[in-house]
Amino acid sequence: MTELAGLKPQHFLWEVQDRIATIRLNRPERKNPLTFESYTELRDTFRALPYATDVDVVVLASNGGNFCSGGDVHDIIGPLVGMDMKGLLAFTRMTGDLVKAMIACSKPIIAAVDGICVGAGAILAMASDLRLATPEAKCAFLFTRVGLAGCDMGACAMLPRIIGQGRAAELLYTGRVMNAEEGHAWGFWNTLHEPGALEDAAQTMARRLAAGPVFAHGITKTQLNQEWSMGLEQAIEAEAQAQAICMQTRDFERAYRAFVAKEKPVFQGD
Amino acid sequence: MTELAGLKPQHFLWEVQDRIATIRLNRPERKNPLTFESYTELRDTFRALPYATDVDVVVLASNGGNFCSGGDVHDIIGPLVGMDMKGLLAFTRMTGDLVKAMIACSKPIIAAVDGICVGAGAILAMASDLRLATPEAKCAFLFTRVGLAGCDMGACAMLPRIIGQGRAAELLYTGRVMNAEEGHAWGFWNTLHEPGALEDAAQTMARRLAAGPVFAHGITKTQLNQEWSMGLEQAIEAEAQAQAICMQTRDFERAYRAFVAKEKPVFQGD
Amino acid sequence: MTELAGLKPQHFLWEVQDRIATIRLNRPERKNPLTFESYTELRDTFRALPYATDVDVVVLASNGGNFCSGGDVHDIIGPLVGMDMKGLLAFTRMTGDLVKAMIACSKPIIAAVDGICVGAGAILAMASDLRLATPEAKCAFLFTRVGLAGCDMGACAMLPRIIGQGRAAELLYTGRVMNAEEGHAWGFWNTLHEPGALEDAAQTMARRLAAGPVFAHGITKTQLNQEWSMGLEQAIEAEAQAQAICMQTRDFERAYRAFVAKEKPVFQGD
Repeated sequence: MTELAGLKPQHFLWEVQDRIATIRLNRPERKNPLTFESYTELRDTFRALPYATDVDVVVLASNGGNFCSGGDVHDIIGPLVGMDMKGLLAFTRMTGDLVKAMIACSKPIIAAVDGICVGAGAILAMASDLRLATPEAKCAFLFTRVGLAGCDMGACAMLPRIIGQGRAAELLYTGRVMNAEEGHAWGFWNTLHEPGALEDAAQTMARRLAAGPVFAHGITKTQLNQEWSMGLEQAIEAEAQAQAICMQTRDFERAYRAFVAKEKPVFQGD
Repeated sequence: MTELAGLKPQHFLWEVQDRIATIRLNRPERKNPLTFESYTELRDTFRALPYATDVDVVVLASNGGNFCSGGDVHDIIGPLVGMDMKGLLAFTRMTGDLVKAMIACSKPIIAAVDGICVGAGAILAMASDLRLATPEAKCAFLFTRVGLAGCDMGACAMLPRIIGQGRAAELLYTGRVMNAEEGHAWGFWNTLHEPGALEDAAQTMARRLAAGPVFAHGITKTQLNQEWSMGLEQAIEAEAQAQAICMQTRDFERAYRAFVAKEKPVFQGD
Repeated sequence: MTELAGLKPQHFLWEVQDRIATIRLNRPERKNPLTFESYTELRDTFRALPYATDVDVVVLASNGGNFCSGGDVHDIIGPLVGMDMKGLLAFTRMTGDLVKAMIACSKPIIAAVDGICVGAGAILAMASDLRLATPEAKCAFLFTRVGLAGCDMGACAMLPRIIGQGRAAELLYTGRVMNAEEGHAWGFWNTLHEPGALEDAAQTMARRLAAGPVFAHGITKTQLNQEWSMGLEQAIEAEAQAQAICMQTRDFERAYRAFVAKEKPVFQGD
């Protein structure tokens, strides 16, 4: 267990190795539901990440063959029923704040999804930057099954941009499972791997990103989100500014020197 | 023929059964073109729908093997040629108002498309929430064929979000037919069905949605459109508010009680 | 070599035939890299195009089996290393201005891509309206390989709208090659052609567009970009206005007269 800016997560597994933080929900016997405690601790962890100098990439991993079963029915849904509006909005804003923190953490997040990935669990995968899965991955935005709308934690904004407006509408209105093959064909999963190979594939991708120009990766992440609703001309100007910043990093010079010397660049993230 | 908030459509077929309204253009011998009359009546019908307490889901169905051949050349295009700008803008705004009314009606619309689905007919399918089709479906945004631009009734905004910017550009610049297989692979059609099975599939989907939490479905629809051009952070806050509203519905409680009792929830839309 | 509004490009090949301008970078022995000179000349050419009455469609073609290898390492990246912020921003804005000029030129641009299409070369393809390629096309947004961010010349805004947010993130974070099959399945390439057939296919498409209502094509292009970040209701109103303009062109009337006479319309672009 590694310290991250003073945080020692208690409600999920947390491991840092080679500048890669791996997060794992840890109630595998119940397919890793979220609780109030793990929600808020995840939010606080992602909020601390921009300042964590020892982490460059995050992996959201599965545990015991499943990723996450969403908000726990007994621990979360029960208390919400009958709660007043002030309490409800505090809850939905807290869950939204987790997604906002994931987006704003300026480090790539790789979801490695095996088995069940539903409700808020599907949102955690959706809000990651890259998504690896197994053929067993079952992803469902099943809010409608519990009487709620598909608009949870940004789903009506983000899912259409990932898989297209029509497919997103179907998943959000029906709550049906998107199987792994569909998810791959539709661009939700970047790659599929056998269950035994998933962890390795995710860590390999994480190491690849961590070995890259991580300052520039942070800018890529910022711009992907920053330009979400910009006009096209404004986005192009924003990128001119952002890329000019990256051209003043030493990593840019390192790449050039390595190219001239016919060597492989060694990036250092500054 | 059922009354809907006082309206009795004269220029298309209209049927309400089990809270599902089925609309069918009715000149099958000419592949169901739109006329000034059916356009305005469709607009008025969708405008009345938010207040119609007896309808939860709409099906836009085909008739005689075809969906819709678009604006009638003799009834619509003829009169437009030579019309002054005031008249032309009144017409294009009226057609746009139909799409605005479809978007704002807060009830899911399912297009069930067989055969010809072109011009404004393709727009009606595009502006629906879910799209079912047969292998015979021929969809073309053929405005360019009549000397017009691809920007008709929202096509330059909506089509790229459904099938991607590059494919949309090709269809809008060339006016070529998107065949059923392409449309399915690209996410325009949610599912394909044999012609004899299309109606059943659409009604089955409609019943499934009507049996769900229809108040929440209305919020899903609102948010899918409301968040179209929001920033990501703003969309997440908007969803926190919208979902908190849904958490005060009885359908949310019904789902929880049913889950605890190991029963299937019976939603009632409030 | 044809004059275009007084310009005689020196740093790339330029040919105008039958109202179709074909542009070809011309250092095939180095896979056609961009230089400061070709960048600025391309920008100026696309800026002049809206006023060029002798060109209706542009083809960005390959040369010697490759499209473009991006910014030249020696001619461009070398000088950028160590440049001050004022100079860097002037450069990134100049490259962004090329994309802005492509977008604003109001004529369809068809990229015909064989072989290498990387870095700024991939951006040129991305910023085109239609994209044809060969099975040999290797497209990579490899900015990360030279220590930079994926946000170059609009990539974080445009690529997600073409191939989806998740696939775009992977390409931009890793800089990996998108092979031709992926690019086609994901909607980046509209069609694939054998290398020997690519030029013909691009010119055929160009002739098809040039034979269409080119004034209306210009409006289609304008609206596809203009509506990028509009709300849906605003986009529909914008299209009502834009289409009403097109309904006052003679091409609209020509199409109607041809239809009534059971002839093929001959469009003239006014």
